[in-house]
Amino acid sequence: MVREFILFSRIGQTDPNFSSLHDAGRLDIMHECIVSSLFLSHGLRRDVTFHAILNGPPNPPVHIKIDGETLYDVRTDIDTWQGIIKKTLSNKAQSQQQVHPGVSKDKVSFEALLKSKAETDNCKIYVLEEGGKELSKIEFGEKSVFVLGDHVGMPRKAETFALRFGEKISLGKTPYLAASCITVINYVLDQKVKF
Amino acid sequence: MVREFILFSRIGQTDPNFSSLHDAGRLDIMHECIVSSLFLSHGLRRDVTFHAILNGPPNPPVHIKIDGETLYDVRTDIDTWQGIIKKTLSNKAQSQQQVHPGVSKDKVSFEALLKSKAETDNCKIYVLEEGGKELSKIEFGEKSVFVLGDHVGMPRKAETFALRFGEKISLGKTPYLAASCITVINYVLDQKVKF
Repeated sequence: MVREFILFSRIGQTDPNFSSLHDAGRLDIMHECIVSSLFLSHGLRRDVTFHAILNGPPNPPVHIKIDGETLYDVRTDIDTWQGIIKKTLSNKAQSQQQVHPGVSKDKVSFEALLKSKAETDNCKIYVLEEGGKELSKIEFGEKSVFVLGDHVGMPRKAETFALRFGEKISLGKTPYLAASCITVINYVLDQKVKF
Repeated sequence: MVREFILFSRIGQTDPNFSSLHDAGRLDIMHECIVSSLFLSHGLRRDVTFHAILNGPPNPPVHIKIDGETLYDVRTDIDTWQGIIKKTLSNKAQSQQQVHPGVSKDKVSFEALLKSKAETDNCKIYVLEEGGKELSKIEFGEKSVFVLGDHVGMPRKAETFALRFGEKISLGKTPYLAASCITVINYVLDQKVKF
């Protein structure tokens, strides 16, 4: 079963010149989402891939992909991830070259990534939004991709684009942190396959 | 509706002489649990109280209580909470004196806290454990207290004590991080009252 998360980061910085993830356009939210996507107690989710599309200065977009299948030598803490993200953003290579196992970077846009997930990989696309269909009522397919925004949300244009390929889903009226949404989705999907 | 979380931290340091929460007996896990207990997107859960019982050196136990109703001037990041926890552990006062709004410390033990929650406050106690009753099948009462361990789990003795007052519940076979457990419990309880 394919399970992927795409974080649309509206102002996430696209060069490595920052002193903290928080001040780099809230890349601390990206760190929290990486942890909730990929980490279990004493282990990693090998069947999950996490993507962030950074749209902040100076050179957007940057697509960072973290592949649970090949990821290793990582911990949950922010210092570990600040190091990995800095190294990845410093990498001058244009395509998918890895500076840390499982972590890669390219210039693929949000729209191009989404289109390829829907049309080439035949994934079902779910866009998190308050007015969407209740998560627990969804019949998930074999390949699910979940799209969510950071603290400022997705721009209308990106959201409209995403909805051409997918449907809106909702976790209810409580406004969860982005990372909490991912934890809940992982739990609901785990329930469907394992209890 | 009362909703409280108690984290049993087996080696969490009980003085403020540390350079990082991670190295202070994994108090970084306490930080993650505070965030998942109390933080929403752009807001706090005013109806949630978080407790940690620190059982590490040099002077266990220390009970730190964070009350969502009165908590303010906080962010989700680890630096904020490292500061608050250090200040709280530095405080020489013996009882519930606050060094940050909503955050207090005393010498109440795990056993005493649990007993008072069950017998004085009439809360229902739920202990997280793999073999427990499935979370989604529980009929929660008006006052629920959830007990969980950190990365090393609770000692058998503490768990046996807790089970004199409550029942085991489980999130399934997936071994979640402590903070993820709290996020999932908050979500499941939100669903029961709000969707």
